Amino acid sequence: MSTSTEFQFTDYQPYDFANRRHIGPSPDEMTEMLKVVGYPSLDALIDATVPPSIRLKTPMVWGAPMTEREALDRLRETANKNQALVSLIGQGYYGTITPPVIQRNILENPAWYTAYTPYQPEISQGRLEALLNYQTMVCDLTGLDVANASLLDEATAAAEAMAMAERVSKSKAKSFFVDAACHPQTIAVIKTRAAPLGWNVVIGNPFTDLDPVDVFGAIFQYPGTYGHLNDFSGLIARLHQTGAIAVMAADPLALLLLKSPGEMGADIAIGSTQRFGVPVGYGGPHAAYMAVKDAHKRSMPGRLVGVSVDARGNRAYRLSLQTREQHIRREKATSNICTAQVLLAVMASMYAVFHGPKGLKAIAQQVHQKAVILASGLEKLGYTVEPETFFDTITVEVGHMQGLVMRAAVAEGVNLRKVGETKVGISVDERTRPATLEAVWRAFGGNFKVTEFAPGYRLPQDLLRRSDYLTHPIFHMNRAESEMTRYIRRLSDRDLALDRAMIPLGSCTMKLNATAEMLPITWPEFSDIHPFAPAEQALGYKEMIDDLSEKLCAVTGYDAISMQPNSGAQGEYAGLLTIRNYHLARGDTHRNVCLIPTSAHGTNPASAQMAGMVVVPVKAMDNGDIDMDDFRAKAQQHSANLSCCMITYPSTHGVFEETVREVCDITHQHGGQVYLDGANMNAMVGVSRPGDIGSDVSHLNLHKTFCIPHGGGGPGMGPIGVKAHLTPYLPGHPETDGKSGAVSAAPYGSASILPISWSYCLMMGGEGLTQATKVAILNANYIAARLKGAYDVLYKSKAGRVAHECIIDTRPLNDSAGISVDDIAKRLIDCGFHAPTMSWPVAGTLMIEPTESETKAEIDRFCSAMLAIREEVRDVEEGRADKLNNPLKNAPHTVEDLVGEWDRPYTREQACFPPGAFRVDKYWSPVNRVDNVFGDRNLICTCPPVEAYAEAAE
Amino acid sequence: MSTSTEFQFTDYQPYDFANRRHIGPSPDEMTEMLKVVGYPSLDALIDATVPPSIRLKTPMVWGAPMTEREALDRLRETANKNQALVSLIGQGYYGTITPPVIQRNILENPAWYTAYTPYQPEISQGRLEALLNYQTMVCDLTGLDVANASLLDEATAAAEAMAMAERVSKSKAKSFFVDAACHPQTIAVIKTRAAPLGWNVVIGNPFTDLDPVDVFGAIFQYPGTYGHLNDFSGLIARLHQTGAIAVMAADPLALLLLKSPGEMGADIAIGSTQRFGVPVGYGGPHAAYMAVKDAHKRSMPGRLVGVSVDARGNRAYRLSLQTREQHIRREKATSNICTAQVLLAVMASMYAVFHGPKGLKAIAQQVHQKAVILASGLEKLGYTVEPETFFDTITVEVGHMQGLVMRAAVAEGVNLRKVGETKVGISVDERTRPATLEAVWRAFGGNFKVTEFAPGYRLPQDLLRRSDYLTHPIFHMNRAESEMTRYIRRLSDRDLALDRAMIPLGSCTMKLNATAEMLPITWPEFSDIHPFAPAEQALGYKEMIDDLSEKLCAVTGYDAISMQPNSGAQGEYAGLLTIRNYHLARGDTHRNVCLIPTSAHGTNPASAQMAGMVVVPVKAMDNGDIDMDDFRAKAQQHSANLSCCMITYPSTHGVFEETVREVCDITHQHGGQVYLDGANMNAMVGVSRPGDIGSDVSHLNLHKTFCIPHGGGGPGMGPIGVKAHLTPYLPGHPETDGKSGAVSAAPYGSASILPISWSYCLMMGGEGLTQATKVAILNANYIAARLKGAYDVLYKSKAGRVAHECIIDTRPLNDSAGISVDDIAKRLIDCGFHAPTMSWPVAGTLMIEPTESETKAEIDRFCSAMLAIREEVRDVEEGRADKLNNPLKNAPHTVEDLVGEWDRPYTREQACFPPGAFRVDKYWSPVNRVDNVFGDRNLICTCPPVEAYAEAAE
Repeated sequence: MSTSTEFQFTDYQPYDFANRRHIGPSPDEMTEMLKVVGYPSLDALIDATVPPSIRLKTPMVWGAPMTEREALDRLRETANKNQALVSLIGQGYYGTITPPVIQRNILENPAWYTAYTPYQPEISQGRLEALLNYQTMVCDLTGLDVANASLLDEATAAAEAMAMAERVSKSKAKSFFVDAACHPQTIAVIKTRAAPLGWNVVIGNPFTDLDPVDVFGAIFQYPGTYGHLNDFSGLIARLHQTGAIAVMAADPLALLLLKSPGEMGADIAIGSTQRFGVPVGYGGPHAAYMAVKDAHKRSMPGRLVGVSVDARGNRAYRLSLQTREQHIRREKATSNICTAQVLLAVMASMYAVFHGPKGLKAIAQQVHQKAVILASGLEKLGYTVEPETFFDTITVEVGHMQGLVMRAAVAEGVNLRKVGETKVGISVDERTRPATLEAVWRAFGGNFKVTEFAPGYRLPQDLLRRSDYLTHPIFHMNRAESEMTRYIRRLSDRDLALDRAMIPLGSCTMKLNATAEMLPITWPEFSDIHPFAPAEQALGYKEMIDDLSEKLCAVTGYDAISMQPNSGAQGEYAGLLTIRNYHLARGDTHRNVCLIPTSAHGTNPASAQMAGMVVVPVKAMDNGDIDMDDFRAKAQQHSANLSCCMITYPSTHGVFEETVREVCDITHQHGGQVYLDGANMNAMVGVSRPGDIGSDVSHLNLHKTFCIPHGGGGPGMGPIGVKAHLTPYLPGHPETDGKSGAVSAAPYGSASILPISWSYCLMMGGEGLTQATKVAILNANYIAARLKGAYDVLYKSKAGRVAHECIIDTRPLNDSAGISVDDIAKRLIDCGFHAPTMSWPVAGTLMIEPTESETKAEIDRFCSAMLAIREEVRDVEEGRADKLNNPLKNAPHTVEDLVGEWDRPYTREQACFPPGAFRVDKYWSPVNRVDNVFGDRNLICTCPPVEAYAEAAE
Repeated sequence: MSTSTEFQFTDYQPYDFANRRHIGPSPDEMTEMLKVVGYPSLDALIDATVPPSIRLKTPMVWGAPMTEREALDRLRETANKNQALVSLIGQGYYGTITPPVIQRNILENPAWYTAYTPYQPEISQGRLEALLNYQTMVCDLTGLDVANASLLDEATAAAEAMAMAERVSKSKAKSFFVDAACHPQTIAVIKTRAAPLGWNVVIGNPFTDLDPVDVFGAIFQYPGTYGHLNDFSGLIARLHQTGAIAVMAADPLALLLLKSPGEMGADIAIGSTQRFGVPVGYGGPHAAYMAVKDAHKRSMPGRLVGVSVDARGNRAYRLSLQTREQHIRREKATSNICTAQVLLAVMASMYAVFHGPKGLKAIAQQVHQKAVILASGLEKLGYTVEPETFFDTITVEVGHMQGLVMRAAVAEGVNLRKVGETKVGISVDERTRPATLEAVWRAFGGNFKVTEFAPGYRLPQDLLRRSDYLTHPIFHMNRAESEMTRYIRRLSDRDLALDRAMIPLGSCTMKLNATAEMLPITWPEFSDIHPFAPAEQALGYKEMIDDLSEKLCAVTGYDAISMQPNSGAQGEYAGLLTIRNYHLARGDTHRNVCLIPTSAHGTNPASAQMAGMVVVPVKAMDNGDIDMDDFRAKAQQHSANLSCCMITYPSTHGVFEETVREVCDITHQHGGQVYLDGANMNAMVGVSRPGDIGSDVSHLNLHKTFCIPHGGGGPGMGPIGVKAHLTPYLPGHPETDGKSGAVSAAPYGSASILPISWSYCLMMGGEGLTQATKVAILNANYIAARLKGAYDVLYKSKAGRVAHECIIDTRPLNDSAGISVDDIAKRLIDCGFHAPTMSWPVAGTLMIEPTESETKAEIDRFCSAMLAIREEVRDVEEGRADKLNNPLKNAPHTVEDLVGEWDRPYTREQACFPPGAFRVDKYWSPVNRVDNVFGDRNLICTCPPVEAYAEAAE
């Protein structure tokens, strides 16, 4: 009996999300596609593709799939179990007002949220401009020279800053000083990060406890977590004398009124731009920022947008300094730099564009003045308010009344912060209204009206900001909503996202982000919950997280899930730390070797090194599989010190390797643990479970397999699943279990986007998820079959099958015609497509992943483009086209090409309307090919190849 | 003291919606603009523009303007006072599921909702395609030949059908037969419409009470309002024998299973497409449909999209048969055909595209089967269920238990329908779940589970549908959500709406539709309320309607508002009926003459004729003002029979006429009433009030002045305000006061879009609204000043000022260079603009209305385009450019022009990038100039000129 609350009388189910909405090919189309691939049925194809030894034996079932409406009703019910009280807890998370024009046109607009990371600059000019605005804003506010395009959260940014300080410091010291006034979660993440790297973390009052000689760097919070404002100039000067690095964690809203970190001499500033219009969302996602002095820019982690030119000499944006990433990695990979929070950084930058410096300053002034009024009232009641000068945060001594006051505040609808055992912290924000302050006073026993108090300033005179900011014209555009709407639209029109075409990126699983999944994330019951709000106010979150965890356990065969890691790389890192802590707890302190196949995703070795492990690469065979002889040999060689192996399944070559169980067995025999990278889970869900085939821990990219959109390069979510024996070693958090090992600022990572993955699971059901996997495999095999003859498909299974993606080899075309993989990628833009993953995992190849949600029509459009490109290459091979002046080399073609003089040996028509391109609805690249002096031979969708590590390890 | 709930400490108000979000020019920009116009201050300009005699003496104030967040909070509070119970009331309004992909990408997407009516076909290809889909769907489902692109609601569509029947009938009879099984509101609106036209309405059982000889037509409801299903074929054949016309009001969902009106021989079918994915919304807006036999297509009211070709011979869509409108009008204007519900028709058509015929049929089958199960349960309880066969609606005899059952149902969360004094009606729908049926049974005293009943069919065998529908490929596209998203995006990308550029349409007031205003309309507490739900469930609506009415009274100086008219033309009609009923009540049955200046909007005379009045045109002087001598003479001549005058203020020539008070006085002296058309209220709000200067009644275009978006050609809202003496004669409604005179199907028209206008008023406050008016006047005068010298600005006041719009004369350019107003309009597309209103109110002119929400930058971009166009004309005048082969004649230029052979005497660059056009972000028209064999010499934004009526009246 169905558990659905809807009637299902008819054979044809009009509300069948799994088969009619999410899964691209219709049943009839699938029949046709299976014919091309050569199998009588989908199950026959799967049987031939997935080794029987790893197949899931019993179907995955958890009740009937819900319709969109049922799922939305369920989400609504769950949301209603959250109570969005006014939170004045602060501690890095503040109330903010998302301008509706930004909410609707960015956060709720598929043109923005379905975009991919801007590795292909030609089709990413819109978000690159928005990110450049972001970087400019951060530089201006911090008074520093170079800012990146965002990091995951303030706490991880602090940890990144520590690692960077260690890299660039001239001091030989191995300690890092942490201001006790840093947010507790920042301190926790720094400690987690430092431990495996062997760095000592000294926590204390910088004015009394910091000896610059002892440290390679120090971090100060500004304003301090309890509201204090200090001038760190003197300390910073002393740090510099010993070659140590000064980091400041600074609130960007406070910087509108206060002397900047740059003006104090800081080398690095980090912080969160959450309060620039991004809802708290129970902890995330938000964009953290990092800015550094020019001298250190090549050591800065993260993506950096830069200005370049295109082939016509017109201005074009691109990700720059990409070579620098490889450079760092080769020496010491202490950073996972592939993650950003683009969608949230874009929102924060638009908040600044919308309000402009005048508006932002007024907002900051108002916030401060509210705090002053609040303090005045409390003082009138006889309370002692600390500190004397502050921006938005005060701390009140209440003695034994602490619990009473906090409960009274909750009864008034307001959350305050528990500080020690006798104090209460209060942070006001953009949303704080007069009624809120009056409610707070009542909680303290007062009964005032705000009108009884004059607003004033209690900022330290010597810390008042005197320098300019946001002087660039973009922050001075007229901020009428009409203009704002049009600016946002113009930028989004420059970009090619999933709302216009398939994005066949291997390993990135650019699947449908269904609207029904996206609707709940802007409901206030999800978006307005403070991450440190009392647990009883977040029962809806708890229910969702518990149920989603249960489902992810069912999907993976693991016993427990941690939702804390807020990116895939973060998940890997957290998983490896879990393994590390497991060994340590058993006294195996020497187990620090991590075996990683050379075919692995670049984040694998980076994560391993961050987890204090020594990376030992394992060879791949010519067919892409792990070289089992080498694996055995390396495992044997490092047996005593083996911590773990990291494998990807199906392999990064897109094949279900037959040897996976053996790899796990060997690892276990030598006392190691198996980390199975969940990047390719879209080929496994419902078909095979990591936990069943011998793996101990995996991360799951919810932004790949579980429908969280890529957001133009973030947010992501990378929860980890583990077997029961590893459960005690999962990350802790100071605000929940009080245990160590936090990897993210918030206990549940980017919790506010979990409704997407949860509703996906609810609407698909176990059967739907399984069907999705099967169709993803069909779609990939169909492409491989369609392109056969034109391109060599590398890395098939013995049965000649690929998994959910396929790699085609374009190196022969380079040899025969001088046409590079880049040329093909750019020519695909003319055809209206985002390129597949380029040159990864093998240079000179394209990795294509269609996912289950593309229809046959769209896949055929892509195949016809690819086949036509092959013919264009043949024209070069056979001398009918010029080697340099041909449609491939000149791609992408733009309107500028059409308008100008045409002296090419092929026609405009051929240039602009190759097969695949829509006629009326053609996507036009806004720029010609962008100049790639810097590093565009790098990987797409990933960090540099693992070979770079071989040297360091051996 | 401010009543704002926000702090406002700083000089610069970052949340000032009125001045920083809604009003385009910044204070600095305004200073510059005033310099160009030649006034030292905004107030000085207003003083020089608006005659002192009509100025509002005391500022309009109703508390502090709210911030966006305050307004959203207020709306939320109000919404929560509505209770969205499950309504099984039916009666033309049914639960439906809006597919999220349609909700987000159409209803919540400014690219769709800010578009204008598709009069300029080149920049409207997307919505024209969607409307063509709609027409195709309606034709297929009704089995008729031609369908229009939607009408206002089912009841007005029925009234239109009656009027059309009267036009095309060969019978001389003056009676119209109305099936007593029609929905009560349909009967009410038909009666309202028939009365002033002198037609007799006979209501009865068509099988016993209809004598075809007596009537010019008849309307039958299918299924009947109480669920009955009849075959009307025999009756229709008998009607045809006497030359009478058969109209069927049919539910399109039922038609998926049932024999179509066309197959029964009906001449006309009308109905509502609400249940195709458009929420009930307390009565609207939804799209009604009308379809007719081919023979009658030229008599059909409403817009009709057709397929044509562009200048390159490529397919292009356009509004066709526009000449037909004039033709009808000249004979007898019994219809106001300028109104449609484009946004809702687009949604309904996308619902059909998304589900396809198979999905729609399954939905209809499920609805029917739910009704069968419901009936089975009630029968098991011993109730008598009528009728024997039905689609979705049944009626249950309950005797004296009626009240009890209905209250019990409400207690279960379900609204049922009161039928007579002893029956209960129940209509199930797409949203009805098993739990709902079980709740209904409980209300009837039963305690069953739906699983106890087998689904079945109780459709009459001889009425089963055997014909195909939705066979066109567009209804068979793969309905995966990815494809649906992309289809919607591709269509919207073809169109130019306010989200990309200003739309300077005179008289149409294309101003900002702010996101904060749009957010609430998709809240279920507004969208899911049945219009006939018990009043206590709609207290939020009541509060909003009352407060908005109060504010509109303050704005207009009237004493009462009726929200019932759901379009501007409908408002005029309702206002004139109010005047008519006033005269009738006083015994002045002879007063039927309506004086209308020839400069009036074309809907004015149409409305007057529909209200049974004789239109007497009054001359306009050369300067565009009313010819006062002629006015006096006509008033004198028709003194005995004078019903009213209809004037527009400021005049349709965009001038504040000094004589307006005199016009009112003269009218009153002759016993007439003054109808002041509210089309130009955007020039009056806060500056002058119709009620103060002598007018008795006006309609307000909430979709012009009060920010409801145009939706691509609907929805609109046209409430009327009246002086106290007219209040008793406002429209009644059978479901509220039970009084006659209903003009719309729903008591409060399109109630669900009122939150837009209300939140606009809340966020602007009285001061903000006043400021908006002043800036609208500034913007128009600035354009007039900028274009001076290049174009003649017609119709200024004595002080040389225009009001909120200006008319520029392009006739001299036609004389000097053969460049028509059309050429200029199309060339503006190349510059990235929608053309101003063309050839209205004067042929060969452009009427430009920038509104207050355009920034100086955007206005300057427009002016530079207009000035450059003037120079291009000069090139023709002075022989530098060819008379026929020039950028103006060939406009708009498309990508096809660029790609093909270029043999023009000007460059591609000049063609495509004239001043005004964005370089990177250029809007490309998807087609070249559309072939206008049919009637594009008509007015833009309006119906034909009033001169056409002179003949008929005299």
